[in-house]
Amino acid sequence: MRPLQLHPDRLFPADPATRDIARALYAQVAHLPIVSPHGHTDPAWFATDEKWTNATALLLQPDHYVFRMLYSQGVDLDALAIPTRTGVPATDPRAAWRLFAEHYHLFRGTPSQLWLDHVFAEVLGFDVALDGDSADHYYDAIGERLASDAFRPRALFERFRIDFLATTEGAHDDLSHHRAIRESGWHGRVVTTYRPDGVIDVEHEAFAGAMERFAALTGEDVHSWRGYLAAHRRRRADFRALGATATDHGHASAATANLSTAECETLFARIVGGTWDAADAELFRAQMLTEMAKMSVEDGMVMQLHPGSYRNHNARLFASHGRDKGADIPLPIDFVRALKPMLDVVGNERDLTIILFTLDEDTYTRELAPLAGHYPCLRLGPAWWFHDSPEGMRRYREMTTETAGFYNTVGFNDDTRAFLSIPARHDVARRVDCAFLARLVAEHRLADWEAADLAQELTSGLVRRAYRVDAAA
Amino acid sequence: MRPLQLHPDRLFPADPATRDIARALYAQVAHLPIVSPHGHTDPAWFATDEKWTNATALLLQPDHYVFRMLYSQGVDLDALAIPTRTGVPATDPRAAWRLFAEHYHLFRGTPSQLWLDHVFAEVLGFDVALDGDSADHYYDAIGERLASDAFRPRALFERFRIDFLATTEGAHDDLSHHRAIRESGWHGRVVTTYRPDGVIDVEHEAFAGAMERFAALTGEDVHSWRGYLAAHRRRRADFRALGATATDHGHASAATANLSTAECETLFARIVGGTWDAADAELFRAQMLTEMAKMSVEDGMVMQLHPGSYRNHNARLFASHGRDKGADIPLPIDFVRALKPMLDVVGNERDLTIILFTLDEDTYTRELAPLAGHYPCLRLGPAWWFHDSPEGMRRYREMTTETAGFYNTVGFNDDTRAFLSIPARHDVARRVDCAFLARLVAEHRLADWEAADLAQELTSGLVRRAYRVDAAA
Amino acid sequence: MRPLQLHPDRLFPADPATRDIARALYAQVAHLPIVSPHGHTDPAWFATDEKWTNATALLLQPDHYVFRMLYSQGVDLDALAIPTRTGVPATDPRAAWRLFAEHYHLFRGTPSQLWLDHVFAEVLGFDVALDGDSADHYYDAIGERLASDAFRPRALFERFRIDFLATTEGAHDDLSHHRAIRESGWHGRVVTTYRPDGVIDVEHEAFAGAMERFAALTGEDVHSWRGYLAAHRRRRADFRALGATATDHGHASAATANLSTAECETLFARIVGGTWDAADAELFRAQMLTEMAKMSVEDGMVMQLHPGSYRNHNARLFASHGRDKGADIPLPIDFVRALKPMLDVVGNERDLTIILFTLDEDTYTRELAPLAGHYPCLRLGPAWWFHDSPEGMRRYREMTTETAGFYNTVGFNDDTRAFLSIPARHDVARRVDCAFLARLVAEHRLADWEAADLAQELTSGLVRRAYRVDAAA
Repeated sequence: MRPLQLHPDRLFPADPATRDIARALYAQVAHLPIVSPHGHTDPAWFATDEKWTNATALLLQPDHYVFRMLYSQGVDLDALAIPTRTGVPATDPRAAWRLFAEHYHLFRGTPSQLWLDHVFAEVLGFDVALDGDSADHYYDAIGERLASDAFRPRALFERFRIDFLATTEGAHDDLSHHRAIRESGWHGRVVTTYRPDGVIDVEHEAFAGAMERFAALTGEDVHSWRGYLAAHRRRRADFRALGATATDHGHASAATANLSTAECETLFARIVGGTWDAADAELFRAQMLTEMAKMSVEDGMVMQLHPGSYRNHNARLFASHGRDKGADIPLPIDFVRALKPMLDVVGNERDLTIILFTLDEDTYTRELAPLAGHYPCLRLGPAWWFHDSPEGMRRYREMTTETAGFYNTVGFNDDTRAFLSIPARHDVARRVDCAFLARLVAEHRLADWEAADLAQELTSGLVRRAYRVDAAA
Repeated sequence: MRPLQLHPDRLFPADPATRDIARALYAQVAHLPIVSPHGHTDPAWFATDEKWTNATALLLQPDHYVFRMLYSQGVDLDALAIPTRTGVPATDPRAAWRLFAEHYHLFRGTPSQLWLDHVFAEVLGFDVALDGDSADHYYDAIGERLASDAFRPRALFERFRIDFLATTEGAHDDLSHHRAIRESGWHGRVVTTYRPDGVIDVEHEAFAGAMERFAALTGEDVHSWRGYLAAHRRRRADFRALGATATDHGHASAATANLSTAECETLFARIVGGTWDAADAELFRAQMLTEMAKMSVEDGMVMQLHPGSYRNHNARLFASHGRDKGADIPLPIDFVRALKPMLDVVGNERDLTIILFTLDEDTYTRELAPLAGHYPCLRLGPAWWFHDSPEGMRRYREMTTETAGFYNTVGFNDDTRAFLSIPARHDVARRVDCAFLARLVAEHRLADWEAADLAQELTSGLVRRAYRVDAAA
Repeated sequence: MRPLQLHPDRLFPADPATRDIARALYAQVAHLPIVSPHGHTDPAWFATDEKWTNATALLLQPDHYVFRMLYSQGVDLDALAIPTRTGVPATDPRAAWRLFAEHYHLFRGTPSQLWLDHVFAEVLGFDVALDGDSADHYYDAIGERLASDAFRPRALFERFRIDFLATTEGAHDDLSHHRAIRESGWHGRVVTTYRPDGVIDVEHEAFAGAMERFAALTGEDVHSWRGYLAAHRRRRADFRALGATATDHGHASAATANLSTAECETLFARIVGGTWDAADAELFRAQMLTEMAKMSVEDGMVMQLHPGSYRNHNARLFASHGRDKGADIPLPIDFVRALKPMLDVVGNERDLTIILFTLDEDTYTRELAPLAGHYPCLRLGPAWWFHDSPEGMRRYREMTTETAGFYNTVGFNDDTRAFLSIPARHDVARRVDCAFLARLVAEHRLADWEAADLAQELTSGLVRRAYRVDAAA
């Protein structure tokens, strides 16, 4: 079997002088607590603190980065025990894990391997690499670990030194898990995030049901424009009461609009009356971003925009397996014209924070850095999704810093469902940021004391301020 | 005169530790046989094995990379002896060569210089650099070399250690040269590739003539939809009989369609009836990609898409000189929406291989890597045309690996008409790949044994499997 | 206080061998005279040679790079003494300077800090870094310097070793300052550039007034198509008489057109008759680029295209503060289709030079390098505006050189209103170019003597030839 060892200098530049600088910067931030202001872990884990069952259920089934790669190379999803619309296939989880292990070489050069190897070595304590030969050893050993109290969700949360963890819930979620966390007396700071897409995107297949629950949870007449807005205000307050400091919006485009109240009422009547067309649906999503921004001016919630994904691109897979199965593909995106209607309303607000994310890296230098380097309300979210990787994060810094500076960015988001990988992801981000700063120092573009200050900011200061972590505490 | 020397460490990173790793990786793949699964050499060379005549005819006249650069700096094409629509200008080939040599400094920093210097030093044995002073020496010495048997096409093919060489022929080509190669008893493996653009693109000026030959060669009623498809099937079988493992498609966009048979028949009637408009022409090309993909599912031919070039952009030059004169310019391209109709039909086929190429590097991270990292049928072709260069190939690896992995790529294509440059081009690709791998090892993102394995894969394994080189042998 | 020191190796690669090469190349070009063929300094400075008043007026108020960043972080523009439409706010300039100094850390990692630190250390002689503590020291010392004759505009021009400096004036400018410079007998070579946007862009709020002055200055009937073109010819001659070698065009898109004379007359009648719509305005701008190109064929003026900026994106700020306040944001741009009508007319002219600039870096490899590597009239302007930075200039070289070569580029433009920063900007460009060349040498992609030759070309030869600096002298 091959050894598994995480090199202490991994992700640092090869040049010895630059590496020394990176190492020194990293030493100052490596052990800072984790602030995770945006992600998709399941609050039920922390509410119930139940043990996870096995390696396949914990590490393979929920990780679409992993099974999309396997699928791209012809591996059958059923053989990997990936859930379909009708349930989890009757596949032996150990056989699924073996299949994954035999194909682990596919992940060479990808962030998935970096994250998984970190999980294997640091969290789970392995010292041999995963492959077909070690598959059973892994499966058994992980099973043993998960059976111990030390690997319950709350224990790991504490071991990972997580200071703040935000999950994401829909506007029509009852927040029972978050309420249970609060009521349990556990001191871990797990908060929710307001994600109202389900009651804004009329093209989503579950819109009608979401609106019903939205009405039931708020007691508002959500079929009138005024009542619908009031329901959002109520739910935003509910979310804040459970620690939320932010909202999140994942539309296919970045379109915003600024309609009159009369126009809004007319449009909304078509939306709820079922007489809308695709242009209405898009205009409604656009208008709602502006409405959400105005509510953020009122209530201080930070607004996150995650646009530009073509969801469920694979029609056959969507039919059989549903959403979030690795078939979401980025689209070209326009921010400059799309955001203007919203920015005309709130762009100059100094107390508002709108954090922009992109899957279209072309927009870094051309649109996002120039916009964030001017508008007081705008900040740049970190490299996102497919770009949340060493090369992707390096490009992000190289392409945004010169125009937007470091201070219009907001630190790192892990954005993950894979709880065990959270320390790995933050560690990669810290290393890549220190490597970038080290290059600037080595090229005499930044003084060493400036870089030391920035390493702290990129790891801790910016995220805490942007997401109002301490203000809300 | 200035010396000409190829440095053994060329294209390796400057950092000494990283360079050592690159050198060691390269040593393991430098001498592997060449597999060239996509290119544009002339099969007549290998059929007749006739000698080339002079330096200008061999190295200057067919190389649009070279004369486009000279033209961009005001050099007259007639003075370079570049053929026009009416024939080759009555320019002294030696004078043309001198003019090229005097402007050779224009190629500093370009891949043309890397390739040509390799041809000059390694293939032709020069030890002085090309410039105005050495022009005549070059012209005479190349003439002498070409007069010897050692520089006949088949002798060079063997000297270059080419294991597999694919040329490209139209659906209306009679394949006589390939037949002659087979019948000659020569053991060199030169195969054809099915490129049906000429009978698919009704906007091509030679469409009508191509369709006539297509009908004559197949005996099918190519003016009925059913007969037209049958003719494609027949010709695909003809091409396979002469070794073809692949088809190739060079449309201006990546548009695909999925029409019903009735819609296809109606559209095809307009195409062959001459009542089509530009939208019909585009829709027909789009539908034919899906038809070709379906035939590939049937017959196992690998499908290559080379979209996104604005052909013949220079109207005056096209009028005087015709096609392929350096005036093709890349266009922005959309793969995500464009390929969906075809992928809805064949996207989940595991035994189908569709290889995507791009001239729009923006699509690497945004579209191509995410698509190839999900759909079982998709693979990424190597950096293409203008991007087939050290920086272009580096960007390709940096921008595709993290999302698509190495295993969704297919090794290198030289894609060239310049036969003598084939070893140079493969050598550049191997060096750049080893340099990339070396950086990953130096930054502890890949183990040394993984990199060694990948160097073999990128040079040999991936291309052999993707193009079914051994399956078809 | 923190020391301020410019490291002699700043911006050079960290690898010791590569750094040595860069250092040697830089040593050969560091002290070459400055040629500044495109910029926005005020000719009044050189006409009157009056002293500047204080640090805020000189360094803060005119520098939109600086105050846009401060504004993006919530700093009030009034508190920075930035002029509004109604005048300069009654802010104490010293207080404004202090506010800037307290926020100077925002510029870490940006070219503004590189340029300003160079101005502070080299031009103004500071040895402590700017921050809140040193703000008053800076303000006082700068005031003292500016009160001395050694800091008058002409003295600095000579101290900076500027050989050629082009400013930019509208077609309706009376050129009185340039005339005064000529008549003063001062030997400094300050010339104008013909920028006719004000009489071409009918959507500009000041179009009517500009046309009136255009008529008055030329005596032509500028409301007839024939007279309008004649007026342009007259003014181009006026500008040439005051040293202009170039024109400049800053449209929102790169659209060009090639209409018949009759079509032009009809279109122009709508433009001057006030019956135009947005499509007419765009078509007129497009046609005028072709007209300007044809006039350049006649009169030899170099044509510069600076397209692709969404001007005045911030509606509220435009209402209060007017143009050029940091709210211009780049747009995606298409050159390939947009330039074709003009290139169909003049593309093959060898004596015409059209220099293309972009704010959309995607176009470097996809469009600009392929176009400039083919058309004899086209050259690539240097990295522009937001991309005029170490990473931006590096990307420019990496993404254009392989297809366009070095010789289809035109050296550096500082493009600045910030006169004191001109040496800093040229120094950054020289360092980044030498660093790029050094990498090519270290990777054995270029011989050392080729790099030495190219360093001279990139600093001096290319710009002098492209802008016809010596031909016009």
